[in-house]
Amino acid sequence: MSAGEAGPVAIMAGSGQLPVLLSDSLRREGRDYRMLAFRGFAAPETRERADQVVDLLDLQRMTRILDEWRPSAVTFVGAVGRPRPSAFLNTIAALRNRRELAPLMAKGDDSLLRSAVAFFEERGYLVVGAHELAPELLAAPGLLTRAAPGGMESRAIEIGFATLADLAPRDMGQACVVTGERILAIEGPEGTDSMLSRVRSFRRPWSRVRVDAGGVLVKTAKRGQDLRVDLPAIGPRTIVNARRAGLSGIAIGSGATLVLGQERTIATADRLGLFVVAVAPRRDARADAEEGP
Amino acid sequence: MSAGEAGPVAIMAGSGQLPVLLSDSLRREGRDYRMLAFRGFAAPETRERADQVVDLLDLQRMTRILDEWRPSAVTFVGAVGRPRPSAFLNTIAALRNRRELAPLMAKGDDSLLRSAVAFFEERGYLVVGAHELAPELLAAPGLLTRAAPGGMESRAIEIGFATLADLAPRDMGQACVVTGERILAIEGPEGTDSMLSRVRSFRRPWSRVRVDAGGVLVKTAKRGQDLRVDLPAIGPRTIVNARRAGLSGIAIGSGATLVLGQERTIATADRLGLFVVAVAPRRDARADAEEGP
Repeated sequence: MSAGEAGPVAIMAGSGQLPVLLSDSLRREGRDYRMLAFRGFAAPETRERADQVVDLLDLQRMTRILDEWRPSAVTFVGAVGRPRPSAFLNTIAALRNRRELAPLMAKGDDSLLRSAVAFFEERGYLVVGAHELAPELLAAPGLLTRAAPGGMESRAIEIGFATLADLAPRDMGQACVVTGERILAIEGPEGTDSMLSRVRSFRRPWSRVRVDAGGVLVKTAKRGQDLRVDLPAIGPRTIVNARRAGLSGIAIGSGATLVLGQERTIATADRLGLFVVAVAPRRDARADAEEGP
Repeated sequence: MSAGEAGPVAIMAGSGQLPVLLSDSLRREGRDYRMLAFRGFAAPETRERADQVVDLLDLQRMTRILDEWRPSAVTFVGAVGRPRPSAFLNTIAALRNRRELAPLMAKGDDSLLRSAVAFFEERGYLVVGAHELAPELLAAPGLLTRAAPGGMESRAIEIGFATLADLAPRDMGQACVVTGERILAIEGPEGTDSMLSRVRSFRRPWSRVRVDAGGVLVKTAKRGQDLRVDLPAIGPRTIVNARRAGLSGIAIGSGATLVLGQERTIATADRLGLFVVAVAPRRDARADAEEGP
């Protein structure tokens, strides 16, 4: 998708490294951008680069800023989740947006951002995903590490992707952990790192759970997931946490999962002996049947 | 199923209240029983009633005891999970069973017990489930509490059962938590109480997860699950933990979920304002199609 070249790209920046990585990428490409950071979410490096820091709930000010920037495209990057107290410091902002906010606040994480996307689209902005502006942030299909999955692990990867495909219609399950043919965990709103620490706890000597050695983290976008809102990602921390959980590797959906700081992520995996493989998941017959043509 | 009346029932007792509840029930019915408790798993009340206390891994001694008791039926009740160190105190027992044990130990929780069932069946014992010996321990369909599910909660219950049915072919998901149309958690080997404490953590003010109020714990046997090995159960503790997790009620599969200490469980739910409903889950078209005729 072309985002047009007339105005700058407006980066609406939440937490994590992605806002900085995306702005680096745009800079390398020679594209003009402006960055709006969400107070209470954006990391310090992000706030340093930001042209504006705004309360997440201050839709009026956001609209005013965008009207001024006249961006060719708007992109939301980095998680915002549930607003932290600091996001409410300027409660006046929240109060003066009460009417617009009520329907947004009634929903869950993804819905909140989906509503925000709809809100800005209705006002005539082109909302695009980070992966459309910087496709090199997505993993290309193939093995990324020196270590490679064995037979058992390939079977686990297959089961993992099939399970996530089964759950996608229910808007659940961006990731799971599978060892052999056994599913150890399915990710809920707690996120990948929490899920991995759950699996880690199964390995403790005093755990009542018996778990085979090894295992694979499988992570990909839910089928039909709006990637403009919540692009699954892995990074060096994911590798370290997977290792701590006793896993032997990670499989991600190519074209649907960001690898943050790709070089460092792969180097970390190589150092710890984990494999990382990007798979173009074959379409699941069952889910397809339900989706229809 | 009739378990025959010739010999006593042999209760092979793991952890929890179920061994004691079952022996109470058999006593009320005037049926003869013997109890073998697994060291390191059986609760003190269970061990008090037990005729024998045996290492989980000492298959030879178990076989010798059963040969002596000549039971009309053998039943495994209460979880055993991963053997605790105390189960290994008598390591000689483990050593002298090495040949039989190796293939059992290589598997997961359920497989371990399934293998044990197969082991004793091959030796000519009739292995039955606790629910076959004491059907009154299962919940009859219907509303068990004063509180009842509302419209949103009925929808959540429907989604919960459908999700568990989807996952059953993968031997995953005996329980899940759903609020509105959103799945908050799917139970893995960590068990129901751990899953509920995860949901509880979502409600903390500093949690990054945004979760609607209420929600329902849905728990039932996996389709095709061997109920002789792992019969899902709820009890007073489940009610308390569900309340702590901010849920408004519990839905269980009737005929496939034990209610331990039914009177106290229901009284606890009534006191805390939770509903408990036992549902005969309607068969899921998708799962049926896959199962075949």
